[in-house]
Amino acid sequence: MADSSLFTKKKITIGIIGMGRIGNVHYKNLQKMPNVEIAYICDIVATNEWNKKYPLAGKIVKDYHEVLADANVQAVMLCVPTDLHPQMTIDAARAGKNIFCEKPVGFDDNEILKAFKVVKESHVKFQVGFNRRFDKNFRRIVDYRNQGQIGDEQILKITSRDPEPPSMDYVKRSGGIFMDMTIHDFDIARFVSGEEVDSVFVAGGVMIDPKIGEAGDIDTALTTLFFKNGMVGSIDNSRKAVYGYDQRIELFGSKGMAHADNVLNSTTTYSGSESTRGDKPMLFFLQRYVDAYFNELVSFFNAVLNDTPVECSFEDGIKAIRLAQAAKKSLETGQKVKVQDI
Amino acid sequence: MADSSLFTKKKITIGIIGMGRIGNVHYKNLQKMPNVEIAYICDIVATNEWNKKYPLAGKIVKDYHEVLADANVQAVMLCVPTDLHPQMTIDAARAGKNIFCEKPVGFDDNEILKAFKVVKESHVKFQVGFNRRFDKNFRRIVDYRNQGQIGDEQILKITSRDPEPPSMDYVKRSGGIFMDMTIHDFDIARFVSGEEVDSVFVAGGVMIDPKIGEAGDIDTALTTLFFKNGMVGSIDNSRKAVYGYDQRIELFGSKGMAHADNVLNSTTTYSGSESTRGDKPMLFFLQRYVDAYFNELVSFFNAVLNDTPVECSFEDGIKAIRLAQAAKKSLETGQKVKVQDI
Amino acid sequence: MADSSLFTKKKITIGIIGMGRIGNVHYKNLQKMPNVEIAYICDIVATNEWNKKYPLAGKIVKDYHEVLADANVQAVMLCVPTDLHPQMTIDAARAGKNIFCEKPVGFDDNEILKAFKVVKESHVKFQVGFNRRFDKNFRRIVDYRNQGQIGDEQILKITSRDPEPPSMDYVKRSGGIFMDMTIHDFDIARFVSGEEVDSVFVAGGVMIDPKIGEAGDIDTALTTLFFKNGMVGSIDNSRKAVYGYDQRIELFGSKGMAHADNVLNSTTTYSGSESTRGDKPMLFFLQRYVDAYFNELVSFFNAVLNDTPVECSFEDGIKAIRLAQAAKKSLETGQKVKVQDI
Amino acid sequence: MADSSLFTKKKITIGIIGMGRIGNVHYKNLQKMPNVEIAYICDIVATNEWNKKYPLAGKIVKDYHEVLADANVQAVMLCVPTDLHPQMTIDAARAGKNIFCEKPVGFDDNEILKAFKVVKESHVKFQVGFNRRFDKNFRRIVDYRNQGQIGDEQILKITSRDPEPPSMDYVKRSGGIFMDMTIHDFDIARFVSGEEVDSVFVAGGVMIDPKIGEAGDIDTALTTLFFKNGMVGSIDNSRKAVYGYDQRIELFGSKGMAHADNVLNSTTTYSGSESTRGDKPMLFFLQRYVDAYFNELVSFFNAVLNDTPVECSFEDGIKAIRLAQAAKKSLETGQKVKVQDI
Repeated sequence: MADSSLFTKKKITIGIIGMGRIGNVHYKNLQKMPNVEIAYICDIVATNEWNKKYPLAGKIVKDYHEVLADANVQAVMLCVPTDLHPQMTIDAARAGKNIFCEKPVGFDDNEILKAFKVVKESHVKFQVGFNRRFDKNFRRIVDYRNQGQIGDEQILKITSRDPEPPSMDYVKRSGGIFMDMTIHDFDIARFVSGEEVDSVFVAGGVMIDPKIGEAGDIDTALTTLFFKNGMVGSIDNSRKAVYGYDQRIELFGSKGMAHADNVLNSTTTYSGSESTRGDKPMLFFLQRYVDAYFNELVSFFNAVLNDTPVECSFEDGIKAIRLAQAAKKSLETGQKVKVQDI
Repeated sequence: MADSSLFTKKKITIGIIGMGRIGNVHYKNLQKMPNVEIAYICDIVATNEWNKKYPLAGKIVKDYHEVLADANVQAVMLCVPTDLHPQMTIDAARAGKNIFCEKPVGFDDNEILKAFKVVKESHVKFQVGFNRRFDKNFRRIVDYRNQGQIGDEQILKITSRDPEPPSMDYVKRSGGIFMDMTIHDFDIARFVSGEEVDSVFVAGGVMIDPKIGEAGDIDTALTTLFFKNGMVGSIDNSRKAVYGYDQRIELFGSKGMAHADNVLNSTTTYSGSESTRGDKPMLFFLQRYVDAYFNELVSFFNAVLNDTPVECSFEDGIKAIRLAQAAKKSLETGQKVKVQDI
Repeated sequence: MADSSLFTKKKITIGIIGMGRIGNVHYKNLQKMPNVEIAYICDIVATNEWNKKYPLAGKIVKDYHEVLADANVQAVMLCVPTDLHPQMTIDAARAGKNIFCEKPVGFDDNEILKAFKVVKESHVKFQVGFNRRFDKNFRRIVDYRNQGQIGDEQILKITSRDPEPPSMDYVKRSGGIFMDMTIHDFDIARFVSGEEVDSVFVAGGVMIDPKIGEAGDIDTALTTLFFKNGMVGSIDNSRKAVYGYDQRIELFGSKGMAHADNVLNSTTTYSGSESTRGDKPMLFFLQRYVDAYFNELVSFFNAVLNDTPVECSFEDGIKAIRLAQAAKKSLETGQKVKVQDI
Repeated sequence: MADSSLFTKKKITIGIIGMGRIGNVHYKNLQKMPNVEIAYICDIVATNEWNKKYPLAGKIVKDYHEVLADANVQAVMLCVPTDLHPQMTIDAARAGKNIFCEKPVGFDDNEILKAFKVVKESHVKFQVGFNRRFDKNFRRIVDYRNQGQIGDEQILKITSRDPEPPSMDYVKRSGGIFMDMTIHDFDIARFVSGEEVDSVFVAGGVMIDPKIGEAGDIDTALTTLFFKNGMVGSIDNSRKAVYGYDQRIELFGSKGMAHADNVLNSTTTYSGSESTRGDKPMLFFLQRYVDAYFNELVSFFNAVLNDTPVECSFEDGIKAIRLAQAAKKSLETGQKVKVQDI
């Protein structure tokens, strides 16, 4: 997976477009990669002060076209709001830049498919940021499957619960729980099982905060997956697990079961007069998936530098969106929904 | 729960009707209860040899009417095939005997309701054998709930997988996976949550043995539960977990989560050159629920001797059957099914 | 180990001598063994009221010679204070009774050796009550050893900590921590490893309650074991672990390690806003070793009924005492002490 | 502990002296610290080719005096063989360089004390490379202690076992197991408990490879620690745990116990027909302590840049050596040895 040999290999020159939370996550990781030259940091609200904030950045710019216009830039990282993904993808692809794009790849289907077409035609690399694919615990399940130790897959179970709901502002522009949160689980379901989903059925509701309901969203969902190979799966999501970020996956088959448990803050337990207690799970995605965020970039840069396929493609990004759309429709209709009917 | 003071209290005189597997499980436990006098062991295939096999039995008889006719008998244990439960219940109730009846309470709805009516009128105790209610691990979840540590219940998850499918003979007369196997999970779902189920939705299929399919049954099921209070739940069943009997329950709510894990053969792990490995879960229900089987009898006898309510009533038995029937219908129709429509 | 077939086999007639705490533990277990006839319960403070308290007892007597005089009694259980063990053992052996004797087998070396001689000559069975040998978790370590999965044994580690110190009255007549508490660990060290101890070295002190020091005892001990085969071991004892009864054993060798962990009150964990916490270890020895107490009796009765060797012999009882004496001497001298020099 | 703000702070210019295994470990970590300028890499066998191998190094030199002579170098990292530590420390201190020195700080007592004196006089920072102090799991124990949740400390237990013995070449120049391996445990014992050791007693021997014995060393050791505050401790060491690198610490006191367990390769378990098994512990120190190696450098650089005390001082290095020397003497004499008598 992550290849430390990267550090001794040829250099790659990139630009980061969008410096919100996720852009900063990536910047922090890029600092640890001596072979990556951050030629540009681009954000519409960038100021001159940013030179100090991002000392590794070659230039700080406001207009992403500047980044695309520079022939030295080999790849761009699109960390802007989702609705801007398709157009920037198109522009970057046409400029011949390899693209690392945050999830989801877009909101509007027509725009997404248009961008997909341009990417295909441009023969640039395009990787979507489903970072969980690069978590070593989930990869370990895939190892067991690849080694034949699961046998015929029969039941997949994913628990994915956040420690805190996002702000109401975020909820309103998130695209809904399926597009914002479950989309990761849809992708990891495909990745861990190696199988495609045929239909989904959703049970869920507003159990945590009525305001989320007023915003037209739900905060708790239990999604049943019908896979094309006959296996079944479930994803349970909650926007608020008071005990912390809960990320577990279990794959059950005819020959055995692999189960990835939470990653805790330490292996240290405390036994007091009340109980023996372990540390909490790592706080949230930035902590739990800290290595995964690093590894996905290494994987992308290796794909660019060595001209090998990316590990998480545009198609993967689209398929996860289709599942989110099917889930939304199932919630609305109370019916099982076939993904191909979306 | 189980009260060891039982051993020093007044005696109770009983008869066991039906000495198949479960009848023998109970006999073994009754041997350890010095205050219980097994006045009769009754089975249509009983022979004189059985005096040696069941040395604690006062009399060995073939006709259960003999047991019911004996005024000294305070309670009977119905361990016969399910289709015989309702008639024997009626006969026993009319004879004024308190009844411990194995699950399910019957197959035919009319017979069940008739038996229920007679039991009500006769004012005898009737306890149905949902032994898992007496498992200390599951009770611990209820403790946490009762203490308010779960808060508002939001998600219930039950994993219930057998180590081996039963014989095809058994499959054919079992009433199907929902009536035979999931029925325990339906009951424990109600017990652990303290809530009633409104609707169910089933995904499932034949993944283990095509012969089970030929017999009109399935071997793998993923059931979604919609509770009346809005919470959701899932039960995943498999007839064959190669790693052993898998019985886990997790109750998630606004204030916390309680999770009952499997009971292993020992707490001893072995760390070898390949891995660190733990012992397997206890073999099957007779091992895992050995104390629960003991405790449910103690509970029943205490209810009889002290004239207190039973902990698992006829209504509980009927409600579990309704859920099994709704699940079957959901599987057949591919639709969510309301329990009250059954 | 425990053989449930016991229940269908020939009867055994016994007497219990001494009805303090441990006598009652055994009585409770004997109630669950339908093939055991408790012909006598004997205690110097017994009264007529005891008929109600011990309804299964044939006779309640004050003088143990009455028990020994009854030709029907096949075995006696000596549950009296330790200083009385040797004389009663001698009397019982001479009366031809098989003997189950609580640990330690005595305090005075001359008396012990005299009793040992009489037992040998009388050809009665004598089992000492080192119940922990019958704990399934510790036996599991022995299984691994017997299967060759430990390889050459190199390090043995025993943690043995009580939840609460005993009363000062008890401390004063206990014979000291090594004779009262560590003696179990010395025996289980020999049992688990299958090896003999050559020398011991003790570090310890009064860390919990100065009154224990004033009584001439210590409350915390760390004992190093030098085994004859070269392996080393450690036993750490505390009279007070606030988190509960802590009983763990780890056997490390050239091919692997077996580790028996604590037995908890349930497998249920609770994840709240502070932490995920498990249940406490079972309260104390009566809870943790409840099955072991049962099993040691079954084992003894089987040895008597089938004329097979006992699983925990008089020699075992003496060897554990020698180790306790050596430990005491090491604490006093600050030197490593050879067991054979005791 | 580790401070990511480091990345945005003032730069520090350093030189690494000695590019064996540990020098390379540090180089790899330094690559991830954009504020650290590696002005020199120095090794007596360095060649011009090393420019490619260590692209971040300003200069590649053979003579460490060149490094010391450069006024821009603020700190040096001494990663050379142990016997060279004192002289280089003296030279670096006199040159006004801050020093990060690998453990142990030397072999010869006179040399060590001389170096210590020079460092004191020179007022340079000196940190010794006891990396385990920077392991988050062990730090968590210290947290609990600092929060008062351990109470009076009573028993400390350290398990420290390597997956494989080193080469015989290494064994011969290692200074023996106590100076090479247990020295880490001696230091962490002091760090975790916050207490000083008064005396030690050692049991141990050659159990793994007779060649280690022929080289005058042992491969298995069980060391008892007598602390000045009365608490006791044990360290068990083995040069070969077939199941992997075993690094556990347990601190037991009047109010509770903290226990740091091994760090596994993943949280993923596999349940097959034989057992449920977890992943192995991380391979060896380079993996298990990967973050600790990173964090100790960050800590050192912060101490230099902010002129704050180092977290692991020269005195700490000397005290660990005294303990190793006392342990060796105890093994040779079979007696408990007071550290101050060394």
